[in-house]
Amino acid sequence: MTQTSQVEDLTSAGLEHRIAEQSAPLTNGSSKTNETNGVHTNGIAKHQPGDLDASQLKVTLADPNARQVPDEAAACASFETVCTDHMITVSWSAASGWAAPELKPYGPLSLMPTASVLHYATECFEGLKAFRGFDGKLRLFRPNLNAKRMLMSTLRISLPGFQTAELEKLITKLVAVDGAKWLPKSRPGSFLYIRPSVIGTQAALGVQAPKEALLFITLSFMPRMDSPPGGMRLHTNPEDMVRAWVGGFGYAKVGANYGPSLLATNEAKARGFQQILWLYGSEGYCTEAGASNFFMLWRAKDSEGGKLQLVTAPLDDRLILDGVTRRSVVELAKVRLAGELDVVERKYTIDEVLEASKEGRIVEAFAAGTAYFICPISLIHHRGVDVQIPMGKTGESGNYTAKIKGWMKDIMYGNEQHEWGVVVNDE
Amino acid sequence: MTQTSQVEDLTSAGLEHRIAEQSAPLTNGSSKTNETNGVHTNGIAKHQPGDLDASQLKVTLADPNARQVPDEAAACASFETVCTDHMITVSWSAASGWAAPELKPYGPLSLMPTASVLHYATECFEGLKAFRGFDGKLRLFRPNLNAKRMLMSTLRISLPGFQTAELEKLITKLVAVDGAKWLPKSRPGSFLYIRPSVIGTQAALGVQAPKEALLFITLSFMPRMDSPPGGMRLHTNPEDMVRAWVGGFGYAKVGANYGPSLLATNEAKARGFQQILWLYGSEGYCTEAGASNFFMLWRAKDSEGGKLQLVTAPLDDRLILDGVTRRSVVELAKVRLAGELDVVERKYTIDEVLEASKEGRIVEAFAAGTAYFICPISLIHHRGVDVQIPMGKTGESGNYTAKIKGWMKDIMYGNEQHEWGVVVNDE
Repeated sequence: MTQTSQVEDLTSAGLEHRIAEQSAPLTNGSSKTNETNGVHTNGIAKHQPGDLDASQLKVTLADPNARQVPDEAAACASFETVCTDHMITVSWSAASGWAAPELKPYGPLSLMPTASVLHYATECFEGLKAFRGFDGKLRLFRPNLNAKRMLMSTLRISLPGFQTAELEKLITKLVAVDGAKWLPKSRPGSFLYIRPSVIGTQAALGVQAPKEALLFITLSFMPRMDSPPGGMRLHTNPEDMVRAWVGGFGYAKVGANYGPSLLATNEAKARGFQQILWLYGSEGYCTEAGASNFFMLWRAKDSEGGKLQLVTAPLDDRLILDGVTRRSVVELAKVRLAGELDVVERKYTIDEVLEASKEGRIVEAFAAGTAYFICPISLIHHRGVDVQIPMGKTGESGNYTAKIKGWMKDIMYGNEQHEWGVVVNDE
Repeated sequence: MTQTSQVEDLTSAGLEHRIAEQSAPLTNGSSKTNETNGVHTNGIAKHQPGDLDASQLKVTLADPNARQVPDEAAACASFETVCTDHMITVSWSAASGWAAPELKPYGPLSLMPTASVLHYATECFEGLKAFRGFDGKLRLFRPNLNAKRMLMSTLRISLPGFQTAELEKLITKLVAVDGAKWLPKSRPGSFLYIRPSVIGTQAALGVQAPKEALLFITLSFMPRMDSPPGGMRLHTNPEDMVRAWVGGFGYAKVGANYGPSLLATNEAKARGFQQILWLYGSEGYCTEAGASNFFMLWRAKDSEGGKLQLVTAPLDDRLILDGVTRRSVVELAKVRLAGELDVVERKYTIDEVLEASKEGRIVEAFAAGTAYFICPISLIHHRGVDVQIPMGKTGESGNYTAKIKGWMKDIMYGNEQHEWGVVVNDE
């Protein structure tokens, strides 16, 4: 047994270093400035061969008359997701980096049966929406945050990095091309769902980082899920099912967080609940509601001042996703509800929720995420106990939930001009 | 807050119940008898429409002259995995169950960009080998165990179940068809790698159990990895990387266990190690070596009798894979090394390994799995400390490791006639 050099935990440190490299434009060391603005200040970036480079995009347009835009309700009820006319694909190889991106007609991918993604879950994705505003304009909501998170996820799952501004440009381009037809001005207040993904495509069995990958972006219909009749009903996870763990990858948007959760979710659905409230550890810390972030609005105990608190799990132990909706709720509430309530990011347990319920201190609760947007929660079932959560006078949503949701909607659909609502010009 | 019915942990109980249903032939309630024998006693099973049914196989043969069998070394060094002439595919839908299986020329799969497997890791697989014996016969090694584990994995990841005997028949058929050409009698002592997989194919975004799936089986070359020069060198996982956790899915062969492990494995490789020794919890329990099971052979402390012990992590907390090689080592050693050593399945920590090393009690160590077979371990690096492990007089392998490996090889390649070596007749 010999003493050698001290081991550092290089994985997370290395990850952060790589993210910083990729986020910064190559001509500019100041990633700090750019990470909040993304593409909009990055026009001067010079690309090396092999970099992801949106300016190299090859465009092959579909016959615009080949497909008709379906009714929104019909499209959302479809067995298969209804995508728009086009998709973007970009292939990558370890030998030559990113190829020129292609915008082309939506259609199947050809993958060898030995492709890495089909066996080892070398895959990650993002989800964001394109909104047709009430002012007729097309908008994205803080797309720079999705692009940054996508980079973090790709690196976590050993897929290739890229400059996030280029991903933003590609997303913007797809929305610009298909927006006029698929999200027409005649449907203000509508949205489409944008799904960028990266998958490992190298046709090689064996547990190894793939040397070939594919980035692709689709644009599709998605049901509105933010107001289920009677509110969302949550069931805490069974003791033998844990979603994520410290030292795992719960904070990354990788496929591996989703498939394994389906068994418990289906069990909850069979019992009449919509989603699992994922608890962590023997303490039963509240983490996420299904694949959304989770907020409780309660009054602190009298002994602690009795003040209104909007509580959500913290990001620092990397158990939960750093949701764009979560972050926006936190930021808006801190400014616009200052004085009325405190926003508290901290670990809190299901026992605290039970206690608050017993003492009549629970005011509201909601799930927050791109898919479910801001979704009022009416009930939490935990080991034989039903915690009822007030749903306001209308029975549809508590007041604060409705207020926060309204602010977000106004930004998304252009009722309020805000830097988070990034306008995309229709082509 | 209302008191309702007691919640049971139905997930694991439900899983076991479904496995029992699927493993038993429909005409025979006694799954106990059949689960150890699999296909070989199941000939009388009657199938319902929608069951996986190997007897419905449709065969489309490839042109036998289209591809030549490459040299083994060249095939194993290939950037892409070299598969044989054929593959088997079986599609499934929630509406109509399993379709007729197809044996057809090996080639790409067509998947929509929105296919479940590409986003949510709805995927699982098995790995086993076909051996060309020194007696000229083709053999599988305990394929019933792989088929059973595959069923457990498919159900864990919310993919469709099947009767395991049918999967065994399909595997056998593919090996029978391609064995004569691709694993010829002129190459005794060679093997091919069999990879059955099930993936979720429904082209629908949204986190839900896929309503369409595809089972496919390929047969390919794989490098021999059981004797790296100087033995396998392990690096314990960095503190910020945990492979599996209690309540997770470490025991199932699902893609989600593999992709997330690549970052730490690559880091270890960059430092000159082959694999990660995955520790669990603050105690640092030894669990797996890379994607293989892990065995230590040491002398117990003098105070505990000083007897030779072959120690490996237990299955009961479901952190580790119930490896076929692991199980076979345990079973063989218990019988053939009785009196010489004790086989001990228990939790043990890296600190026990360090202590045994300090006290000179470590005798041997090896990884055990289908890919790495029985692979001698020469070193474990843990937080700045190198634990050297004896590699026998030749420096290639300890004696017990070599002895166990020899027994296994003899069964696989027909030097010993044994019920674990299941003969497949060439077609």
